[in-house]
Amino acid sequence: MNGPRVTVWNEYRQERSDEEVGRIYPDGIHGAISAALKGDGLEVRVATLDEPEHGLTEEVLDATDVLLWWGHLAHDEVADEVLERAHRRVLEGMGLVALHSAHFSRLFKKLMGTSCDLKWRHDDRERLWVVAPGHPIAAGLSEYIELEEEMYGEPFDVPPPEELIFVSWFGGGEVFRSGLCYRRGRGRIFYFRPGHESVPTYHNPDVQRVICNAARWAAPTPSAAPVYGETDPLESVRERLP
Amino acid sequence: MNGPRVTVWNEYRQERSDEEVGRIYPDGIHGAISAALKGDGLEVRVATLDEPEHGLTEEVLDATDVLLWWGHLAHDEVADEVLERAHRRVLEGMGLVALHSAHFSRLFKKLMGTSCDLKWRHDDRERLWVVAPGHPIAAGLSEYIELEEEMYGEPFDVPPPEELIFVSWFGGGEVFRSGLCYRRGRGRIFYFRPGHESVPTYHNPDVQRVICNAARWAAPTPSAAPVYGETDPLESVRERLP
Amino acid sequence: MNGPRVTVWNEYRQERSDEEVGRIYPDGIHGAISAALKGDGLEVRVATLDEPEHGLTEEVLDATDVLLWWGHLAHDEVADEVLERAHRRVLEGMGLVALHSAHFSRLFKKLMGTSCDLKWRHDDRERLWVVAPGHPIAAGLSEYIELEEEMYGEPFDVPPPEELIFVSWFGGGEVFRSGLCYRRGRGRIFYFRPGHESVPTYHNPDVQRVICNAARWAAPTPSAAPVYGETDPLESVRERLP
Amino acid sequence: MNGPRVTVWNEYRQERSDEEVGRIYPDGIHGAISAALKGDGLEVRVATLDEPEHGLTEEVLDATDVLLWWGHLAHDEVADEVLERAHRRVLEGMGLVALHSAHFSRLFKKLMGTSCDLKWRHDDRERLWVVAPGHPIAAGLSEYIELEEEMYGEPFDVPPPEELIFVSWFGGGEVFRSGLCYRRGRGRIFYFRPGHESVPTYHNPDVQRVICNAARWAAPTPSAAPVYGETDPLESVRERLP
Repeated sequence: MNGPRVTVWNEYRQERSDEEVGRIYPDGIHGAISAALKGDGLEVRVATLDEPEHGLTEEVLDATDVLLWWGHLAHDEVADEVLERAHRRVLEGMGLVALHSAHFSRLFKKLMGTSCDLKWRHDDRERLWVVAPGHPIAAGLSEYIELEEEMYGEPFDVPPPEELIFVSWFGGGEVFRSGLCYRRGRGRIFYFRPGHESVPTYHNPDVQRVICNAARWAAPTPSAAPVYGETDPLESVRERLP
Repeated sequence: MNGPRVTVWNEYRQERSDEEVGRIYPDGIHGAISAALKGDGLEVRVATLDEPEHGLTEEVLDATDVLLWWGHLAHDEVADEVLERAHRRVLEGMGLVALHSAHFSRLFKKLMGTSCDLKWRHDDRERLWVVAPGHPIAAGLSEYIELEEEMYGEPFDVPPPEELIFVSWFGGGEVFRSGLCYRRGRGRIFYFRPGHESVPTYHNPDVQRVICNAARWAAPTPSAAPVYGETDPLESVRERLP
Repeated sequence: MNGPRVTVWNEYRQERSDEEVGRIYPDGIHGAISAALKGDGLEVRVATLDEPEHGLTEEVLDATDVLLWWGHLAHDEVADEVLERAHRRVLEGMGLVALHSAHFSRLFKKLMGTSCDLKWRHDDRERLWVVAPGHPIAAGLSEYIELEEEMYGEPFDVPPPEELIFVSWFGGGEVFRSGLCYRRGRGRIFYFRPGHESVPTYHNPDVQRVICNAARWAAPTPSAAPVYGETDPLESVRERLP
Repeated sequence: MNGPRVTVWNEYRQERSDEEVGRIYPDGIHGAISAALKGDGLEVRVATLDEPEHGLTEEVLDATDVLLWWGHLAHDEVADEVLERAHRRVLEGMGLVALHSAHFSRLFKKLMGTSCDLKWRHDDRERLWVVAPGHPIAAGLSEYIELEEEMYGEPFDVPPPEELIFVSWFGGGEVFRSGLCYRRGRGRIFYFRPGHESVPTYHNPDVQRVICNAARWAAPTPSAAPVYGETDPLESVRERLP
C-alpha cells in the first residue's frame, strides 16, 4: 500500500443506542467508511470515543497521515489532552477530514477559531453541486450528488474557505457550502457536509468517492519542521544606501 | 455629494426593441439603476452602447470612480478601443460592478481570464442567501432576497472569488455563486447575478440596496501610481555572511 | 465624531518596568497610538492589563467597534472570561487590529487556530513594501515604510491571509508577511507586524497612518445577527422530477 | 512512466544569439529544464518559438498535461491562434508553469487579466523563503533557496494568488511574491520567479526540484467537461410556502 495511513475516528454511540441507526450502520459509521477506504487501497485503522484516550494515543496519531472525524452528541467528552494532541498533529502536517456534525467538534472549532454554527432541519433532499470541476476532491464525480439528508443552511460561521468544492441545494429552500478546503500549519483540512446518522449516506458510492479523494488530497507532503524562535542573521545589517 | 462618481453603462437595446422589456424599464435598465443610486446620494451619469464611443470617452472614464455594466446580446459590438480603455481604468483603480449577463461582456471576461460560462434557463425562482453576514455589500439586508428570475447554474467558470457574498438557490434545483468580489490592479470588481431584462429585478429595493452598497465598496482608495520598470537599488548588494 | 469607536488595549508593563521603553513611550504604547487615532478624528478609549477585567468589561466591549491589541510578556495573564468575551465580540462584528507581539496573544491565537509562531531577532532594519496598492489600509503611503525594528521572519504559522497588504524586507536577510487581513464571523481582523517596545515605531507617521486606516477598515458594518439552529422550511420538500 | 506529460516551451533565441547565454545553456533553457524533469521520471517534450506553430500544434497540446513556458524578448511574436489554443487547453485542465519573464507572456497575461508589471534590475542576490511549508511545491526544500539572480520587485500586478509559496528577499532591498498558485477553469497555474538567462539558475538542484514539484502539482485531475448553456430543470418550479 502506498497511500496515506488513515485513521477513522467515530463517536460510535448512536449506532449502539438507536436501533434505526444501528440497522443502517451495523459496523458503525467508522465501519462503513473504513470499508470504502480499504476498497480504494488505503491503509485504515479505526478509533472511537469510548476507547482509552478515545483510541487516539500518541502512537496512533504519530502513525496517522490523515484523520477522519465523525462526532455528534458527545463533542464535549473529548478530553483536553487528546484535543491538544490532535491539534498539534494537524499543524505538523496530519490531514483532517471533518464529516457532517463534526463541524461542532472541539478539534474543528479550535482549528477554525469561529463558532462553526449553522441552520439545520431533518428530512430534506440535498443536491451537492461541484463548483470546482477539475479539483482532485471532485475526481470521478458527475455534475452533482443527490442524497436524502438532513439540511444544513447558511450562514455557516467558518473562515472563508481557501477552496470551495461543493455547494448544496436543499428541497426546503436553503443552500450550504458543503466542501471546504483549508490549510493550517502544514496540515490540510477538508470539511464535507453530508452524513447524518439516520440515513445511509456513507453507503453512497459518490460520497465514498469524495471521502477517498479527500483522504488522498489531505495527505501530508514530507517536509522538515519549520524553524521558529530567535535566529542569527544571514546578512550583516548595515546602513541603507543614501 | 461625497460618494463615488458612478457611471451606469447599459446596452439599451432590448428596452427599445422588446415591448415587454420596455414596459418594465421605460427609462431603460440604466434609468432604474440610476434612480436608485441617486436616491442613495450618489453622483450618477449614464452611458449606452449606441452613443459615440459607447458613451465611455476618455473624459467620462477619467471622471468615473465606479462603472456599472449591463449588457446581453451585443457584447461583441463593444469596440476594442473602449474595451482597452475601461480595462486600463479598472487596473488604475476604477471599480466595476458587473450585472447579470455582463458575465459574458468583453470587459469582465478580459479581467477574469476565463470563459465565464454557466448554465441558464428562463422563468425560475431565486433566493439569494447572504453567506458573508457583516460584509459591507450585504449591509441592510435580511437573510436572503427572493426574486422571480432567470436561472444561472454552476459551474460558473470564473476565478475563485476573493470574497463570496451571496449563494443562490433556484426552484429548478440549481445553485449559483451570485455575489463575487475580486481585486485586479488597484480596482475592485463585484459581480452580481440577478437582473434579467424580462423581470423587474432592478426595481426590487433589496437588489437596489446591494447595488448601492457595491458601488460604495468598489470605490477607489486614492493612491499613487505603482512604480514599475528598471529601478535603482536601495541597499548595496554585497556578499552574504559566511 | 462619526468613525468607529476604538479601544486601544495595552499590556502596559514594560513602559513602567524598563527605563528605555518608558523614555520612548512616556504615556505608554497605548498613549502614543491613542493620540494618533484621536488626531485622525476617531473616538478612542484605552484599557490595560492591570485594570479590573483588564479594562475590557462587558460595557466597554459592547461600546467598542474596533479593538487594538498590544501585548508581549504577559499573554498568559489574560483571564479566560475576558478572552471569551473579546472573542465572541469579534465574531459579532467587532474589528481587531493585532499589533506586533500580539501574534502570540491568546485572542489572536484563538481566532487563528494555529501556533502563530515565527522567527525573531532584535536590532534589524525593516522595509515594509506595499504589495496591495489601492487597498484602503495602504491609503496615503508611498511604496514602502522604513523602520529600525526587531526582525520577524517566515514561516509565520497563521492561516493564509485573505488579503496580504505588506511584505517586509529585513537587513539580516529575512522576509515577513507584515500586513494580513482576515474575516472571522462578522468581524474583521488586521495583523500589523511592526511595533517593538524598544524603538519609537508608533511615533512614525506612516505607521500611524496604517493603524488609523486599519481601524476604519476593521469597523463593523451594521448587520442583523445571523439565524442559527433548527429552522422551518421555506419550500415544501417534494420528489424531484423523474 | 506515470507522471504527467510535460511540454517545455522556450523562446530559444538568446541562447543562440548571445554567447554568454549560450555558454550557460548550450542545449537551451528548455534543454536544461527537460533534463531535470526527465531525471525526475517525467515524460517530456520540447517546443520552441521558431518551429511551425511554435511547436504547439493541436496534436502537441492535446497530448500535453502540463506546459512550462519561458519567454522574454519575443512575447509579441506568439501567434493569436496558438495563444487561443493554449488558453483554451488551460481552461480544459492543462497545467501551466510560467517561468520568470513569462510574467509578460501573452498566455500568462491573458489568464491573469492584469498588466503583470513589476520592478526589475540585473545582478542581485535572491533568497526565496518558503512561506507555505508542507505545500507539495516546496517538498524536499529546506527553509530557502539562494541564487545570484535578476531582481524582480513589488508591486507585482497580478491577481491575489490563491496560494503563496515563496517570498523573495533581494540584496538591493526589495521583496517579491515568487511562487504563486492559481486555478483557472479546470487548469492549475504556477508562476515561479527565478530564471534569468544570464545566470545558471535552471542548473540549481533546488530550482529543479521546485519545477518538478510544480509539474506534478499542476497535472490535471481527470474530469468530465462541465455542462454549460440552457438546461432543463431538475425540480418543478412551484410557489414557495406561504
